[in-house]
Amino acid sequence: MKNQKKYLLDENEIPRAWFNIQAIMPNKPLPFLHPATRQELKPEDLFPIFCEECSKQELNQTDEWIPIPEEVVRQYAAYRCTPLVRAYDFEKALGTPARIYFKNESVSPAGSHKLNSALAQAYYAKEQGITNLTTETGAGQWGGALSYAAKKFGIECAVYMVKASYNQKPYRRSIMQTFGATITPSPSMSTRAGKDMITADPNDQGSLGGAISEAIELALTTDNCKYSLGSVLNHVCLHQTVIGLEAEKQMALAEDYPDIVIACFGGGSNFCGIALPFMRHKIQKGEKTRFIAAEPASCPKLTRGEFKYDFGDESGLTPLLPMYTLGHTFKPATIHAGGLRYHGAGVVLSQLMKDGYMEAVDIEQNESFKAGVLFARTEGIIPAPESCHAIAATVHEALKCKETGESKTILFNLSGHGFVDMSAYDQYLAGELQDFRLSDEELAKFMASANALNE
Amino acid sequence: MKNQKKYLLDENEIPRAWFNIQAIMPNKPLPFLHPATRQELKPEDLFPIFCEECSKQELNQTDEWIPIPEEVVRQYAAYRCTPLVRAYDFEKALGTPARIYFKNESVSPAGSHKLNSALAQAYYAKEQGITNLTTETGAGQWGGALSYAAKKFGIECAVYMVKASYNQKPYRRSIMQTFGATITPSPSMSTRAGKDMITADPNDQGSLGGAISEAIELALTTDNCKYSLGSVLNHVCLHQTVIGLEAEKQMALAEDYPDIVIACFGGGSNFCGIALPFMRHKIQKGEKTRFIAAEPASCPKLTRGEFKYDFGDESGLTPLLPMYTLGHTFKPATIHAGGLRYHGAGVVLSQLMKDGYMEAVDIEQNESFKAGVLFARTEGIIPAPESCHAIAATVHEALKCKETGESKTILFNLSGHGFVDMSAYDQYLAGELQDFRLSDEELAKFMASANALNE
Repeated sequence: MKNQKKYLLDENEIPRAWFNIQAIMPNKPLPFLHPATRQELKPEDLFPIFCEECSKQELNQTDEWIPIPEEVVRQYAAYRCTPLVRAYDFEKALGTPARIYFKNESVSPAGSHKLNSALAQAYYAKEQGITNLTTETGAGQWGGALSYAAKKFGIECAVYMVKASYNQKPYRRSIMQTFGATITPSPSMSTRAGKDMITADPNDQGSLGGAISEAIELALTTDNCKYSLGSVLNHVCLHQTVIGLEAEKQMALAEDYPDIVIACFGGGSNFCGIALPFMRHKIQKGEKTRFIAAEPASCPKLTRGEFKYDFGDESGLTPLLPMYTLGHTFKPATIHAGGLRYHGAGVVLSQLMKDGYMEAVDIEQNESFKAGVLFARTEGIIPAPESCHAIAATVHEALKCKETGESKTILFNLSGHGFVDMSAYDQYLAGELQDFRLSDEELAKFMASANALNE
Repeated sequence: MKNQKKYLLDENEIPRAWFNIQAIMPNKPLPFLHPATRQELKPEDLFPIFCEECSKQELNQTDEWIPIPEEVVRQYAAYRCTPLVRAYDFEKALGTPARIYFKNESVSPAGSHKLNSALAQAYYAKEQGITNLTTETGAGQWGGALSYAAKKFGIECAVYMVKASYNQKPYRRSIMQTFGATITPSPSMSTRAGKDMITADPNDQGSLGGAISEAIELALTTDNCKYSLGSVLNHVCLHQTVIGLEAEKQMALAEDYPDIVIACFGGGSNFCGIALPFMRHKIQKGEKTRFIAAEPASCPKLTRGEFKYDFGDESGLTPLLPMYTLGHTFKPATIHAGGLRYHGAGVVLSQLMKDGYMEAVDIEQNESFKAGVLFARTEGIIPAPESCHAIAATVHEALKCKETGESKTILFNLSGHGFVDMSAYDQYLAGELQDFRLSDEELAKFMASANALNE
């Protein structure tokens, strides 16, 4: 084992192909279904909403490796390869014999891993002659990433930002505007879907599902405009595999290999990014690595949701997706980890979860910030509230090692920094942060919306 | 010439010694003077305020290389070596034949170059058995850096933050608190100096000079407590030379050498950091490199100030320093580049300026943000308002190359990111940002305070 602090890779080591786990899954994901006909979806059914290339990638169950376009690699080089870092001082503060590594995706221009897919999606849009992209954003990480990526490829970008985050995180809005995008708080009066939500509840603070409905509606009703999603879908998870592919090489430089891989879980793209390249060795070579998704106790789709067909958005504009869900009408508590406030889990991940290749834990909001502050004070990076969940799950495992005396190797993905989430840290440090745990009654109420679709 | 995007160096390449230009200056800096006796200062005269090791480094005119303690190198490894980046897309947007490189210091835990000295100062304090450090901060970059460094070495940290910045940049305060420091807006009622300022002007929005007075007073009146400064002084500039020493190796990797080196200028530490290692080749080998300091038009100490003995702080608690100054009673306009709102230039830099080794330009606030937004949209990093001044000066030179057709090599220091300065970008994008140019009348009024000391 090496004892460096950071393992760097030159831009020449940026992966030239994304890893498509669909090609090697023992049980392929169930088909996407057309909501009206319940027929199996073909890529061309997605063309009205998404770029053609992304639509094809979405349903590609045969090609294990999908080449990354040269121009995307060139744009990746602004920040990739990202460092793999050994968290020596964090280990020491925990008093654990575990070796903790993190992949630092916070160094990207937009401050998170989200840019890995945004650049790919903006590139394919440009190639197809698209002039406008729409999207939704929760905490603003994805919106910031797509705003920047769209600008780089000369495309206009319109972002629906979940109202709770819009108000909590004004700097995120400013970042998107600095990158040249147009931002609208969701629900808004600019779409039919938004008007319906506001009519139903004038104080609706928004959700990712609702913002997705608005963005899709705008794409469907605007010329030469497509919709772009920042998580959940297979092509997004695919693009994120550059994270794990790099980490694999970097763990080899460290002469180590992860016993446990951890990432926070919203829709699954960050988790897939770090996990899937390592999971292929579990599938193909029987490696014993554990994969742990850390989700908020307020939004526990993997730990307490059910595997069902459900809509990806609140208003039911998407195909029916086979996934772990809390029900598409789910209204998440206004936790600061806006990027985790989503009712469903990605299709590929849901199948892998069902098949026992991974596990999940839920984390309370205060616990996540406690872990984040310790990490900031020891490793110097203030983590995004989402990433704090991964860090808290890492603390769990590191403390188990302390009890048992085992020196396990833990790798987690630091999906983003928290420089524009400081009001959340203020509240935590002042002891004013609330915990939210979804009650059984609420869960049953929301789940009914998914159950109705599966009768 | 190589055509990579980034030039990385492994942590094993972190410099093991700082470069002390005082040892090779053709004209040594004039002595520091005791304000009461006007006698030349010895290191021990600084011991009541500063750590002993820093005091010795301050007046060391003989050792060209000063070893970096092993523990400081270990802490540097969390973020150093920082990347050297070729700004291809920024060049393209400017249509310039110039090759533009930047050293990216924004990747440090505290978000700026400031940590390079903070870690060194906190280490020396710890070694001396000091338990408390005080300091001032303008934009909050230095305060954030010292808060983190102090925490790493188990020292308590109290920060006086210029009131204008405290109100403009609440996230900076939060960052310092997350790192565990105590923050007080300056002027405050907690010191004699602060009370005097508030009595003179209840609406005093503070200045770096005033906050320094408060922090020094607290250090002088508290047991086992020293003061720590983030710029201006020679030992701070010394610690920053790791920037240029790394950049020198990285320019060699790029098979290139700078014709022009540019940095923004507050007290001089960021400028010294990138410039001095290259300037030694100008002094020792006659290299023709130009060195350009970019200062705000509202605070033009190098372009319109005078070389005088003056105090480093507003209340006259520091020794008399031989430097370019606007007068220690200078009240800067409330520009967003809080780190540049200082009346004086570092002693070493002032002598080098006087001797013709460097030049300076002034930049208006709107011009700085215009350059910063273009940089953000092309290179993906939202620069700190201070760094925007360096970028604007780079634009000047790049556009001159466009006119003449020369492919000059320009290197600038990206001293920090602007993620917590987004309200400034909001104002710029809304067209609401004011320009401030210091008038001749104001200049004469402030300068009188320095003139009085030189009679």
